[in-house]
Amino acid sequence: MTDSRQAGDRKLWGGRFAEATDGLVELFNASVGFDQRLAEQDIRGSLAHVAMLGRQGILTEDEVAEITAGLHGVLADIRAGTFEWRLDREDVHMNVEAALRDRIGPVAGKLHTARSRNDQVAVDFRLFTKEAALDLAGKTRELRAVMLAEAEKHLETEVILPGYTHLQVAQPILLSHWFMAYVAMLERDEGRFRDAAERMDESPLGSSALAGTPWPLDRHATARELGFARPTANSLDGVGSRDFALEFLSACAILAAHLSRLSEELILYSTFEFGFITLPDSHTTGSSIMPQKKNPDVSELARGKAGRVFGNLMGLLTVVKGTPLAYNKDLQEDKEGVFDSYDTLSIVLRLYAEMMPKTVWHADVTRAAAARGYSTATDVADFLARQGVPFREAHEVVGGLVGLASRTSRQLWDLTDEELRAAHPLLNAGVAQQLTVQESVRSRQSFGGTAPDRVREAIVNAKQALNP
Amino acid sequence: MTDSRQAGDRKLWGGRFAEATDGLVELFNASVGFDQRLAEQDIRGSLAHVAMLGRQGILTEDEVAEITAGLHGVLADIRAGTFEWRLDREDVHMNVEAALRDRIGPVAGKLHTARSRNDQVAVDFRLFTKEAALDLAGKTRELRAVMLAEAEKHLETEVILPGYTHLQVAQPILLSHWFMAYVAMLERDEGRFRDAAERMDESPLGSSALAGTPWPLDRHATARELGFARPTANSLDGVGSRDFALEFLSACAILAAHLSRLSEELILYSTFEFGFITLPDSHTTGSSIMPQKKNPDVSELARGKAGRVFGNLMGLLTVVKGTPLAYNKDLQEDKEGVFDSYDTLSIVLRLYAEMMPKTVWHADVTRAAAARGYSTATDVADFLARQGVPFREAHEVVGGLVGLASRTSRQLWDLTDEELRAAHPLLNAGVAQQLTVQESVRSRQSFGGTAPDRVREAIVNAKQALNP
Amino acid sequence: MTDSRQAGDRKLWGGRFAEATDGLVELFNASVGFDQRLAEQDIRGSLAHVAMLGRQGILTEDEVAEITAGLHGVLADIRAGTFEWRLDREDVHMNVEAALRDRIGPVAGKLHTARSRNDQVAVDFRLFTKEAALDLAGKTRELRAVMLAEAEKHLETEVILPGYTHLQVAQPILLSHWFMAYVAMLERDEGRFRDAAERMDESPLGSSALAGTPWPLDRHATARELGFARPTANSLDGVGSRDFALEFLSACAILAAHLSRLSEELILYSTFEFGFITLPDSHTTGSSIMPQKKNPDVSELARGKAGRVFGNLMGLLTVVKGTPLAYNKDLQEDKEGVFDSYDTLSIVLRLYAEMMPKTVWHADVTRAAAARGYSTATDVADFLARQGVPFREAHEVVGGLVGLASRTSRQLWDLTDEELRAAHPLLNAGVAQQLTVQESVRSRQSFGGTAPDRVREAIVNAKQALNP
Amino acid sequence: MTDSRQAGDRKLWGGRFAEATDGLVELFNASVGFDQRLAEQDIRGSLAHVAMLGRQGILTEDEVAEITAGLHGVLADIRAGTFEWRLDREDVHMNVEAALRDRIGPVAGKLHTARSRNDQVAVDFRLFTKEAALDLAGKTRELRAVMLAEAEKHLETEVILPGYTHLQVAQPILLSHWFMAYVAMLERDEGRFRDAAERMDESPLGSSALAGTPWPLDRHATARELGFARPTANSLDGVGSRDFALEFLSACAILAAHLSRLSEELILYSTFEFGFITLPDSHTTGSSIMPQKKNPDVSELARGKAGRVFGNLMGLLTVVKGTPLAYNKDLQEDKEGVFDSYDTLSIVLRLYAEMMPKTVWHADVTRAAAARGYSTATDVADFLARQGVPFREAHEVVGGLVGLASRTSRQLWDLTDEELRAAHPLLNAGVAQQLTVQESVRSRQSFGGTAPDRVREAIVNAKQALNP
Repeated sequence: MTDSRQAGDRKLWGGRFAEATDGLVELFNASVGFDQRLAEQDIRGSLAHVAMLGRQGILTEDEVAEITAGLHGVLADIRAGTFEWRLDREDVHMNVEAALRDRIGPVAGKLHTARSRNDQVAVDFRLFTKEAALDLAGKTRELRAVMLAEAEKHLETEVILPGYTHLQVAQPILLSHWFMAYVAMLERDEGRFRDAAERMDESPLGSSALAGTPWPLDRHATARELGFARPTANSLDGVGSRDFALEFLSACAILAAHLSRLSEELILYSTFEFGFITLPDSHTTGSSIMPQKKNPDVSELARGKAGRVFGNLMGLLTVVKGTPLAYNKDLQEDKEGVFDSYDTLSIVLRLYAEMMPKTVWHADVTRAAAARGYSTATDVADFLARQGVPFREAHEVVGGLVGLASRTSRQLWDLTDEELRAAHPLLNAGVAQQLTVQESVRSRQSFGGTAPDRVREAIVNAKQALNP
Repeated sequence: MTDSRQAGDRKLWGGRFAEATDGLVELFNASVGFDQRLAEQDIRGSLAHVAMLGRQGILTEDEVAEITAGLHGVLADIRAGTFEWRLDREDVHMNVEAALRDRIGPVAGKLHTARSRNDQVAVDFRLFTKEAALDLAGKTRELRAVMLAEAEKHLETEVILPGYTHLQVAQPILLSHWFMAYVAMLERDEGRFRDAAERMDESPLGSSALAGTPWPLDRHATARELGFARPTANSLDGVGSRDFALEFLSACAILAAHLSRLSEELILYSTFEFGFITLPDSHTTGSSIMPQKKNPDVSELARGKAGRVFGNLMGLLTVVKGTPLAYNKDLQEDKEGVFDSYDTLSIVLRLYAEMMPKTVWHADVTRAAAARGYSTATDVADFLARQGVPFREAHEVVGGLVGLASRTSRQLWDLTDEELRAAHPLLNAGVAQQLTVQESVRSRQSFGGTAPDRVREAIVNAKQALNP
Repeated sequence: MTDSRQAGDRKLWGGRFAEATDGLVELFNASVGFDQRLAEQDIRGSLAHVAMLGRQGILTEDEVAEITAGLHGVLADIRAGTFEWRLDREDVHMNVEAALRDRIGPVAGKLHTARSRNDQVAVDFRLFTKEAALDLAGKTRELRAVMLAEAEKHLETEVILPGYTHLQVAQPILLSHWFMAYVAMLERDEGRFRDAAERMDESPLGSSALAGTPWPLDRHATARELGFARPTANSLDGVGSRDFALEFLSACAILAAHLSRLSEELILYSTFEFGFITLPDSHTTGSSIMPQKKNPDVSELARGKAGRVFGNLMGLLTVVKGTPLAYNKDLQEDKEGVFDSYDTLSIVLRLYAEMMPKTVWHADVTRAAAARGYSTATDVADFLARQGVPFREAHEVVGGLVGLASRTSRQLWDLTDEELRAAHPLLNAGVAQQLTVQESVRSRQSFGGTAPDRVREAIVNAKQALNP
Repeated sequence: MTDSRQAGDRKLWGGRFAEATDGLVELFNASVGFDQRLAEQDIRGSLAHVAMLGRQGILTEDEVAEITAGLHGVLADIRAGTFEWRLDREDVHMNVEAALRDRIGPVAGKLHTARSRNDQVAVDFRLFTKEAALDLAGKTRELRAVMLAEAEKHLETEVILPGYTHLQVAQPILLSHWFMAYVAMLERDEGRFRDAAERMDESPLGSSALAGTPWPLDRHATARELGFARPTANSLDGVGSRDFALEFLSACAILAAHLSRLSEELILYSTFEFGFITLPDSHTTGSSIMPQKKNPDVSELARGKAGRVFGNLMGLLTVVKGTPLAYNKDLQEDKEGVFDSYDTLSIVLRLYAEMMPKTVWHADVTRAAAARGYSTATDVADFLARQGVPFREAHEVVGGLVGLASRTSRQLWDLTDEELRAAHPLLNAGVAQQLTVQESVRSRQSFGGTAPDRVREAIVNAKQALNP
């Protein structure tokens, strides 16, 4: 073991401490177990910093070259999986820096000129979160494209689905219309991620511990080099704020809520009782004891994992709440929830993008279901209203008819002319044609409605929004 | 009691129900206790709807005139506080409609043509939430202007504050710099509310129950009339989605976190131990038993109320999670949390805008505090580093000096030349001038740093951003 | 307006304050809007306190008599609804005390001897929360009794229900067995409320502001008089802790989760697709536009209101987190969530206790559903295993049979002897009798299993637990 | 690769699946990454099950012996760290079973007789959670003992601390009294864990998939062997309920709130401004750029980690909410939050147990602080009240005196006799002796108060409660 190695082994801030750090404290404080994930970001930040220090004449060309080469070497080790992460070196920053020293000697110490771990972790974590936001925006867009393609596919054959309110069959709709509802949600989800990414697109590098530094830094240059739109305008805010992570987690939570709604519907639709869909074998699993089961695991997990994402948001809100400026160690708790939410949603988005096109819809079953429950009763009420009957009166008339049909186990179209006329003089045989689900769907021509022409129009618009 | 009144008294959807609604159920289902707050929005929605029905030839001019006049009458009653809200009429929509019928008779029933409570509640609640988002954006901006003015005021005298990390004095900063950190946070908070308002700026009116309607509506016209940018593109999404409320609540939660950080700092600064500020009598209260107390109630409540806002967000996320499309009664739970978060933040923002300029800062106390804790030690390290000493080595040298001074109860500037040189040959008397807090502050010239010139520059930029 | 009235109008802690309290601050600080709900508890606390002061010789008999009579007068006004709650008197304590002074003059001021608002609010809120916990324990028990009676009722006819895992039909069970699962959950829920009530059964009265008092109080006596098991052992803890409210809210949240599971199942079972139950008209509502709808509103709201209860818990956890001892104004936020959770669960429990016996189960439909999905496949596997075939092998054999039946749209019992024997030599006609759902149910004789005898036994035990 | 190995490699439920499981799905579904932590519990459960199967004559003695030996072998591998956990084997159960088959051949398949993964995971997870609850109960008790010892230690010298409300100095208390407040909280925390452990002390083993089994199991025997008090009474509840985990997480959340309050106080007390304590070097860390810093990292992290624990609770509540009975894959999300909360609190409890005795309290500083802010003003008011002045009047008198002293920068004891008498005729020199903090503390003799005798009494009682 060389001397420089030994130096690396001492706590880098250990100058004034007489007593050794307690082992359990070390374990408790260390973040390297999870923040090693920021290694790439950390080294990119260091490369930008050292290059700028060179241009500003703070380091010599040789020093810059040596440190740069050393950092590339460390990065290569990390990518190759041969890097030894050490708990006693606390975090990703100290691990990288100590490894750099092991590799190039004391000149490594110059990298930390005009920089603090506070702005280092702030820049690393922002880089990660921004990239995560953009990546989820992209994956959300991919799933949107898939849902849009499904909408288009099923429009050809005008597959009909029951539209539900209160999980009671309400009115027939097109399956394509259902897909387009998720297209609309996912479009807003993408927007939230993009807005978040834009708002956090600022480099805190150069904020130093909290007050800025006396060194003649060029913060605009490092911001540019790291792909940020600009440097943060206030050093205290730069190192102490975490609203960028909270906004990211909020967008994650809302997306998770949408995906859990989709999941709930697919779980329902794949029950024996609904029987609307068959999920692909590739995305379901069986039971160890009940060989007949085909479990919608992906959807169940996607639904359940909303809890995890909500919990991550709640956790970080709680952490940030009530902490004074600027950095507090509490903030170390910011990362795992972001990593976890990102990973969770990445995989769910990908799985749904794969699974939806392989899901088989049983159009005969969904159409039959859509006819249940007197789902076209509103059409009769509308028929009456269009003859001038006040809507509320029409509504009561139809309510009576449904009650009559229900008590006698018939459909509305099974009612006799006599019964219809008894309910209201304007009700005649002509109303019968309002009662098929197909006619009902076709009639809903209002903008954003489920009539095939309207859905076609919506698909055209959505495609344009997707590929402008 | 007239016949029409009696009709109004029956549940409007009661046609097929044989048994009376259970009293407790009525109480449980009724939302009028809180959704009466949407009365203005509800009537605006109805006015737009009925005008459009007239233009489209669905209602006659007379009907439109009668209903419009009736709605204005109802609105006048509500504004005058003479409107009788009835629990047995369930919600704001039914109350308004029944009152309209009481007033103008059966023609009132035509108002509900081509409309459902589902899109009615969706449009009312979106109108409210959008206006709430814009209002909080405005109030956030007002507080920002106040904080900016404070930053400017305190810059004149270069009031110095300790900058903290881990609540340990770290480096001296300008008080103005501290104010500017909150200016930066509040600017992003405003942005979140504006982004949310823009994303939700779509009218669901005309989505009807969930599928659109067969009536020839002009949804673009009603959207325009209600001040929305456009109608929603999908009827199922229009009535069934609540991400707009979730995004609003997320922005609220993040703002609440920022305000609770500010509150925590003010509570600390107003303790006897810190003694940095005196809060105005107008915004503090006393104790019933301890006459000497001057409690920072506003800040404590503002900090505590973060919990309520977080809870509202968590509550609605939980509600939405796993609900199938489109409307479910669960969604009735969406409103109270939005109302409550809006009210809470409105008042906190206003109180802080009032309180901050009346808060007295004790510049002598803050300056003395900023000198504590060897807060200029980094400046010594920087001094060494600028002579070419690797930063990590400089850091260890200074660490040793602090340890020495601390053990002997002295400040860094009390160390002898001998002691300094013993620590490092490059340390000489010249370093002493680095050690005053004022010099330390002035030296931090990096962009976004706390040097007065930099803060002045930041104030100019922030003013421009505020009044472009 | 009399002098004493004017005195009452000044803030009671206003001695040292030069400036009038800001109007908005008053509104913000005031809790009387919600804590007036503690009026009964407040007056009970005061009655116990004043009686004890008399017994200890701190007040004279006359003073005690006068104050006691006055308090009873105030209480009568409150109960009669004639009490004027005033915002400028901040909270329930100040309102009651000022009203007392209006009524009996300056002697009212002696009530506050040796007491602080801190221990007053602590005792009021504990009394409320303890009573709320016991009341919910009782209501949980009532619902349990109802579920138990339903279990017993449906056991007579051995109504069969599909048992689900992953919402896929798994194995047939008795409907009574399903009811008994909720009996078990509700029993634990009751236990949580009782444990919480017992742990919080301590009177903080006499803790004064935080340190205790120099007055010779008898805290054991007031504790006894108020129905508490004992006084709190530490004054700081007595006024500053809120874990009793957190524990109550936790028990509420878990109960809400159970009730939302029940709700989800009832919502599913009442869909057209499942068709298992008909909910009573008294507990469902209709649609304003779709006359055929019968919406399971109670269950939907009960499911949705879980969000509210979870939010209340999260809100208070956030409030308490990180607050120093003892009382902070943040803690004023403790009450609304407790009130709201209590009210919410009270009504849901009552509604379910009413609704369950009126819910009609369609035994033919549930039995048919239970036969679906090869739900007795495990029985075949068990048949093989009992012949000595390793279970995993048996499992694979049956998996193959289900695949075969599924591909050819048959039930297991439609497979030919040849096909059975081809799958495994031990499979013969004898296995057929394993395949009816009734036989399957009857066979599951393990303790806690769904066989009728076992369920009967469970009912007997549960009755005994209910009425020991 | 042998045949048995190949069999192990196929999905055990794969009989009817034509298509290979998608790689990403496998990754998504697999829980072995975290549930391998249940390996010991899993094998204990299997050992109990197989022994019982033998006793019941379901397996032969040889089979039992073979499987038992095999399980011990697997366990030895796991403990030795030589066990290969395989993602394609999904979870801990399948990994263990497949390893058993690799080791002892097809007889391993008999282990799964009369058992399902549903009851297997339920039993494993209950065993873990019960043990975790008892372990945290124990660790809470250990910290309680430490706090009690500290209380005793500091009682000897009657160290005085300011008692705060609203973080304003309110009344002087004993440091020991402050310690005893945490003793009281920790005692209730322990109670919550013990109550939770007792309520979950039921074995679900033998519930099978959800309905029980036709095999003649002895569930009481396996319950006994696994250390459970009894078997669960309902199979559906046994496999489908997770309230035991929710209750555990609730107790964790409340404990975390208490520990975060302690942390907040220690962070405050260790600031330069308060200066009450010096934390041990072993439990603090330094700064990479500010050599003078001594950061209370342990307390900051402990405070921050409350967020994580709250988030875990929120997450699981969300997961459970609205899921139908019995098992759903969503429930797989139950474990990580429990593991994480347990680990987090285990380490925080241990660190505080180590750190508190090594924390140095600066009695001179705390005593001086306790004298600040007219902290004995209440004593004057009490003095007046004891002469018969109504408390509210006394309160106003003292409020005026404090205002006077404050405006003239004096302490109460600096006021002249003239000034005192001018405020109230009963105020004379005799009152002066009420004004020292020591007298104030000694006077608070009410039960649970801060007078040394009372604290001594409380310590005696607490010791008895700790070691009954």
